[in-house]
Amino acid sequence: MKVVDFLKSVRDGEEVSAEDIHWFIEGVGSGDIPDYQATAYLMAVYQKGISDAMTVATTLAMRDSGDVIDLSHIAKTKVDKHSTGGVGDKISIPLAPWVAACGVPVPMISGRGLGHTGGTLDKLEAIPGFRVDLSQARFCSLVEDLGMAMIGATARVAPADRKLYALRDVTATVDSIPLITASILSKKLAEGIDALVLDVKVGRGAFMTDEASARALATSLVRVGSGAGLDVRAYLTRMDVPLGTTIGNALEIRESIDILKGVGPADTTELTLALGAEMLRLGGVAENLEQAREKLLEVQSSGAALDIFRRSIEAQGGDPRVVDEPERLPSAPEVTDVVASRAGVVGDMDAMGLGLAAMGLGAGRATAEDEIDPAVGLVLLKKPGEKVAESEPIVQIHHRGSVGNCIEKVTDSIEITEAYESPGGIVIDVVGP
Amino acid sequence: MKVVDFLKSVRDGEEVSAEDIHWFIEGVGSGDIPDYQATAYLMAVYQKGISDAMTVATTLAMRDSGDVIDLSHIAKTKVDKHSTGGVGDKISIPLAPWVAACGVPVPMISGRGLGHTGGTLDKLEAIPGFRVDLSQARFCSLVEDLGMAMIGATARVAPADRKLYALRDVTATVDSIPLITASILSKKLAEGIDALVLDVKVGRGAFMTDEASARALATSLVRVGSGAGLDVRAYLTRMDVPLGTTIGNALEIRESIDILKGVGPADTTELTLALGAEMLRLGGVAENLEQAREKLLEVQSSGAALDIFRRSIEAQGGDPRVVDEPERLPSAPEVTDVVASRAGVVGDMDAMGLGLAAMGLGAGRATAEDEIDPAVGLVLLKKPGEKVAESEPIVQIHHRGSVGNCIEKVTDSIEITEAYESPGGIVIDVVGP
Repeated sequence: MKVVDFLKSVRDGEEVSAEDIHWFIEGVGSGDIPDYQATAYLMAVYQKGISDAMTVATTLAMRDSGDVIDLSHIAKTKVDKHSTGGVGDKISIPLAPWVAACGVPVPMISGRGLGHTGGTLDKLEAIPGFRVDLSQARFCSLVEDLGMAMIGATARVAPADRKLYALRDVTATVDSIPLITASILSKKLAEGIDALVLDVKVGRGAFMTDEASARALATSLVRVGSGAGLDVRAYLTRMDVPLGTTIGNALEIRESIDILKGVGPADTTELTLALGAEMLRLGGVAENLEQAREKLLEVQSSGAALDIFRRSIEAQGGDPRVVDEPERLPSAPEVTDVVASRAGVVGDMDAMGLGLAAMGLGAGRATAEDEIDPAVGLVLLKKPGEKVAESEPIVQIHHRGSVGNCIEKVTDSIEITEAYESPGGIVIDVVGP
Repeated sequence: MKVVDFLKSVRDGEEVSAEDIHWFIEGVGSGDIPDYQATAYLMAVYQKGISDAMTVATTLAMRDSGDVIDLSHIAKTKVDKHSTGGVGDKISIPLAPWVAACGVPVPMISGRGLGHTGGTLDKLEAIPGFRVDLSQARFCSLVEDLGMAMIGATARVAPADRKLYALRDVTATVDSIPLITASILSKKLAEGIDALVLDVKVGRGAFMTDEASARALATSLVRVGSGAGLDVRAYLTRMDVPLGTTIGNALEIRESIDILKGVGPADTTELTLALGAEMLRLGGVAENLEQAREKLLEVQSSGAALDIFRRSIEAQGGDPRVVDEPERLPSAPEVTDVVASRAGVVGDMDAMGLGLAAMGLGAGRATAEDEIDPAVGLVLLKKPGEKVAESEPIVQIHHRGSVGNCIEKVTDSIEITEAYESPGGIVIDVVGP
C-alpha cells in the first residue's frame, strides 16, 4: 500500500485493515514514514474518527513498536490502574501496595506530570533515594516476589506512541478520543497486564471537563481495551475540587502513607478503596466488590499493605523509614497560611486554579524541561462543606523563597459561602464491556 | 500567535484573520514552521474547508512568498487564461498570440504536465530552440513590446505554494477546493495581471469529473480571484473526449498553428475563440463578446495573429519557420494506424484512456523525472459522430520504437456505434462574480 492511499482512506472515514494500520504505525515509529505524513493522519483521525477495530489495531501497533514485558511466567492475573489525571491525584501510590498485599500482582509503569497535574513518578521521587529506572528484569522479579513495582516508561516502551504524542501536541490533535485511547492503552499493554481499571476524571480539574466527553472516552477505552484482550473497567470519578488534602510531591507521599494507615482524607481513601476493590475482583481474589473491600480493610488494619509499601520503597532504593517517620521526606523551608476572608462554609474549590497555584510554587512543570521541587505545594486544611471562622487558616502554602502571588491564586480558587451541597460520591459511574 | 492555536482554529472551522494566515503561510514558505504542522493545516482545511476571505488571504500570502512581477508600467489591462487541464488542451498556445494581436497584453506563466495531461511548456519546447526560462526583465519587455510572452514558473514564484503543493501530493489533500483555488490563483497573481479567464474542465478526462464539483471550483476561483482584486470569469467546458485532433507535443503545435491559420479542428477553434473573446472583453478592447469575436476573426484572416506567434517564437529563441513549414517540428520515425474494427459511427472517445495511451508513448510524464519525447503522440483522424468504414484508419500512432500495447489502449478507448448524439457545445456555462 502507498502511504497516500492509506491517508486517503483515513481521510474519507473508510475502514482500513489491521495489517495496513500496523504497517503505517510501524513506519511512523521507525521513521520510514515522515512526520508530515504522520500529522496528516492525526488530523484526519481527529476530524473523521476511526472505528473501534481500527483503534485496537493502532493500539497494538503502538505497543508492538517497542519492548513488551512478558509476565506470563506469573500465573496470577496481573492488574494495573490508570488515571487520566487530576489535581492531587496520588491514588496509584497507596493503591499498588494495598492491592498487592491482597495477592494481586501490580506491574505499574507510570508517567511524569506536565501542566497542572503531577505525575506518579515525580511523587515517588520525592522519597529520598527512590529510583524509577529499574531494568526490565528487576521490574519483573519485583512483581513476582513482592507483588508490585512502579517504574517509568523508557524510550523503548511504545516509541511510536511517544512520537505521535509529541506530534499531536504541536498539531492541535491531542483531544481525539481514538488517539487518546490508543496512547493510554498501548503503554499499559506493554506492561504485560491481564486486566486494567481506568479512572476517567470528569470536571474542571480534569482533561475531560464534561461528563459526556468523559463517558465517551471511558466507553472507547473499555471497548478498545477489551478488543485488545484486556479485562477492563472504567470508573468515571469527580475532579472538580482537588483530590484529598495535598497538592505537591512530598506532601502527597505523606497523604498516601496516611491512607494506608487508615488516617487519610475521606475522598482519597474512598477512591483508593473503590478502585482497589475492582482490581481485586478483576484479579480473581474476590468474588464481588463487597468481599474485595473487606479484604482491603483487613490488610490495611493488619499493616500488611503498609508493609508492602515499605518493602517496595526499599527494593527501589528509597529510604523505607519515611513510612514511619514522614519528617524524613523533603519539606519546604517556609509555610504561609491562607486565611478565610470571612466566616462561612467552604464552597467550591477550583481544582485547576489550585493545581496551577501549586505548579507556580515549583510542584509541577509548565514545560517538559522544568525542574520539580519535591518539597513545595499546598495543604488544604478545609474542604468543601467545612465551616470556617473569619481569619481561620484554610490552606497552607509550603514554599521555598517568596510566596509570590500564590496567596491570591489560592484565594481566588476558593469560595466562602453560606451553605454547600455536595455533588455526590466521588465515583459517578462504572463503565464495563 | 502560537502555531498550535492557529491549527486549533482551522481544525474547528473558525475564522482566522488575514494577518494570522499571512504569518502561517510565510512561516511554511520560509521553513520556520515545520512541514509536519503544514500538513496538519492541509488536512484540517481539506476536512473543514475555509471561508472565501481566508482563501483570499492564503492566496495573497502564497503570492507574496516569492517574486511578484510588476507590469503596472503597461497601462493596458493585462489578461491571462488558466486551464485546469485536459487531454489535447493546447488552447493557450494559439490563444495568447491571437489575443495579443488584438491589443490585449498576455503575460503567461505556465506549468509542465504530469500524468495524463500535457503542459504548455512541454508543448512549446517541441519548437526547436524555444526557451521558456527567460529573465523577468526579458519577460516584461516582451509583454510590453510584442504583447505576449510565455514562460515557466521559476522556483522564486510563489515558493510557499510549491512547498504546500508537494506536501498535498503526499498527504491525500490535493482535492480540496480552497487549496486548489489558492494554488492556481497565487501563481497567476504573481504574473502582474489585472484579469483572468479560467477554463474549468468537466468530464472523464479532467481533474473534476462531475459538473457539480467543477462548478464549485469555478465559483470559488471567481469569488476568491475577485476578492484578490482580479476581474475573473470561469468557463465550464467539456472534457469527456480529447480536445482537437492531436495529443502529443509537436503534434499539438501543428494543430495550434492550424487554428491560427483558420484550418484547425472545430472544437479547439471554437474554445479558443470563446475564451479569447472573453479576454478581449475583460481587456477592454471589445464592448461585448460578439464584437470581440469579430475582432478575433479579423486578426486571424489578416494573418496578424499568426505573425505575433511567429515573432514570439523568434523572440524566445525558437525557429519561427515552423509556422510556415511545420515539417521542421520534430516528427516520429514511425506512424502506425489504428483501424475501425467494423463500419459504424465513432461514439464515445475516452479522453483519459487516450491521454494515458499517449503518455505511454513518451508524450507525457508518469513521474516528475520522466523525459518527454516531443515527436510522439496520437492524431485522431475521426472524432465522435463521424462515420467510419470497416478497417478505415481512425487514429494515427506517432511512435519511436515498438508501438507496444498502444493499439490496444486506443481501441479500448474508442467506441464504434450506430448513432452518436453530441452532448452539446464545448462551453457548458460561464461563471461570473
